[in-house]
Amino acid sequence: MSSAQVAGEALALTLTARQAADFELLANGGFAPLRGFIGSGDHRSVCEDMRLASGEIWSIPITLATDLECAVGDVVELSAPNGKALGRLTVSEIYDKDLELEAEQVYRTTDAEHPGVAAIREEGARCIAGPIEAIALPDHDEAFMRRYQTPEESRKAFADRGWTRIVAFQTRNPIHRAHEYLTKAALEISDGLYIHPLIGETKKGDIPADVRMRCYEVLMDNYYHPDHVMLGVNPGKMHYAGPREAVHHAIIRRNYGCTHFIVGRDHAGVGDYYGTYDAQRIFDDIDTAELGITPLFFEHTFWCNECEGMGSAKTCPHPAESHLFLSGTKVRELLSNGEKPPPEFSRDEVAQILIDAYKEESATDG
Amino acid sequence: MSSAQVAGEALALTLTARQAADFELLANGGFAPLRGFIGSGDHRSVCEDMRLASGEIWSIPITLATDLECAVGDVVELSAPNGKALGRLTVSEIYDKDLELEAEQVYRTTDAEHPGVAAIREEGARCIAGPIEAIALPDHDEAFMRRYQTPEESRKAFADRGWTRIVAFQTRNPIHRAHEYLTKAALEISDGLYIHPLIGETKKGDIPADVRMRCYEVLMDNYYHPDHVMLGVNPGKMHYAGPREAVHHAIIRRNYGCTHFIVGRDHAGVGDYYGTYDAQRIFDDIDTAELGITPLFFEHTFWCNECEGMGSAKTCPHPAESHLFLSGTKVRELLSNGEKPPPEFSRDEVAQILIDAYKEESATDG
Repeated sequence: MSSAQVAGEALALTLTARQAADFELLANGGFAPLRGFIGSGDHRSVCEDMRLASGEIWSIPITLATDLECAVGDVVELSAPNGKALGRLTVSEIYDKDLELEAEQVYRTTDAEHPGVAAIREEGARCIAGPIEAIALPDHDEAFMRRYQTPEESRKAFADRGWTRIVAFQTRNPIHRAHEYLTKAALEISDGLYIHPLIGETKKGDIPADVRMRCYEVLMDNYYHPDHVMLGVNPGKMHYAGPREAVHHAIIRRNYGCTHFIVGRDHAGVGDYYGTYDAQRIFDDIDTAELGITPLFFEHTFWCNECEGMGSAKTCPHPAESHLFLSGTKVRELLSNGEKPPPEFSRDEVAQILIDAYKEESATDG
Repeated sequence: MSSAQVAGEALALTLTARQAADFELLANGGFAPLRGFIGSGDHRSVCEDMRLASGEIWSIPITLATDLECAVGDVVELSAPNGKALGRLTVSEIYDKDLELEAEQVYRTTDAEHPGVAAIREEGARCIAGPIEAIALPDHDEAFMRRYQTPEESRKAFADRGWTRIVAFQTRNPIHRAHEYLTKAALEISDGLYIHPLIGETKKGDIPADVRMRCYEVLMDNYYHPDHVMLGVNPGKMHYAGPREAVHHAIIRRNYGCTHFIVGRDHAGVGDYYGTYDAQRIFDDIDTAELGITPLFFEHTFWCNECEGMGSAKTCPHPAESHLFLSGTKVRELLSNGEKPPPEFSRDEVAQILIDAYKEESATDG
């Protein structure tokens, strides 16, 4: 592309929901130090070295795939899927990214069944890069907006509360007792807990973000301490990139002002693409001082009848038959039949919300 | 003192139990980098700056107070209270330490009722300093020796297990549910937990170390996971120096190979000499990288009937009436009457050991 080309007239591009989620985190500071969609040099560097060309740790390429005809120097007006004007991008490069390199290096698989790989292939290789200028952020439902904070706002909220050790919890599921326990274990050694559910696009079958928000809210009202727990929302989308996405999730929470980040087993995984501990081991080779946030690694947790409490394979010595275990299938079956799992598995209030959601869903389906 | 003096004949000194505890940690590496009882320069520096004259962080002076007539260069043969030969000290300095400076700076009080201040005053100001050479360590009962490890041995044991994140728990009390919970919360984010009870001298009224060991052993057998929890013993004595002793306890556990150290409310405190969080706040001014171990700060923890689980003022939002609280007086009353506290307060097995110990004690008293 010629860099001498004169800036053209404004072009228009309506972003997909996934692209708008990237725009939002670029615009609100959640993707700092990125200030725009990355070019070919950064793309290759991120894929191969997990770093931007400038050297900073970055684990998932933030690219804008589009067929829009444009030239370097053009200004592209960007709008959300609902038509809301978001801002503009000044095209600095038009390139074909190496999709298979990204699949192999970032997703560790080229399997078309992998939802993240499928998504980038569907978007295509042709990308435009360039800095963005935001005039607005995408709209969200009121349920999300009442908890919405930009990184600047969450940092200020933490400072106002005098928190210096803040642990972030990424989630794309309702919080049952197991996750409540590990967030609280992490909070015991911190000043504050930032529950930061992802509300962008997830794969089919995942529980919708608005239902999940109701679950989080009821926990905030009944089981978390308001002086030590904040609920925000991460407008990002899921990539299901396992270890690379664990790093990605950590970087975002660093930008939101958190000092620690919970990484469970199979974090951001899907199917059998990643080893159980891959998303923890990837941090072995990362200097957490450079990363700017410290991961806290957790095992699966459960209620144990002999401990009469929550625990994990590390803290509970009792055999599996003492542990309350319900498969995801079993839990869905119970809830969709209007039955609550035991209170040691899920708070009654959370179970009720999920039962109601299943009822609404089947009423809609009907 | 004249440094030109010729080394005299061997002199003999029988250490008190408190001095033998210091000797043991000097000899086994628990007090590294110290290799002997400190002199006047280190004493003043530790009192005033919480550092050795060489600059290393050190919070409680390790001095040898004695009236023994000797001269610089003399070699003093040291023996344990039971007569066992332990090794020798080569006198490098004889000096009167500033007891009141130590009381004010280390103990933050000159009150004679403070057990640590009372102890150093009773020992007196005249000290001999010098490097020690150990030929043996003091004897301990079999109950302690089966768990005894030198810092070299514990480091090797951690390495053999592949642990890189090891959290240490200092205790001078039986472990009830509250402390079990916080050790397990800390373990959830670590590879291993090192329960490291202090078995040296404590104040009157504290539960004897051998009874406590039985409590720890029964928890090791029934409630801690053998692959993730080790029980050792710290031969040190208590100073009840609150914040300064929290740092001291952390340094010792660093030497034993631990990476994290649990600091609760009023750690190593006694009476009302220290603020609830003083022993946590003292770490605010310490570079944990320099210290070589990271403190983990905990609140008081308890069973909550609404949470149906353990929690703290940070993790449980419910009012005090939902919390199971038993005063120390109440617990002693229950146990001495042969009654078990609720299982949410203390494991049955632990309660039974304490009940039996109270029975034995009253039989002995009678």
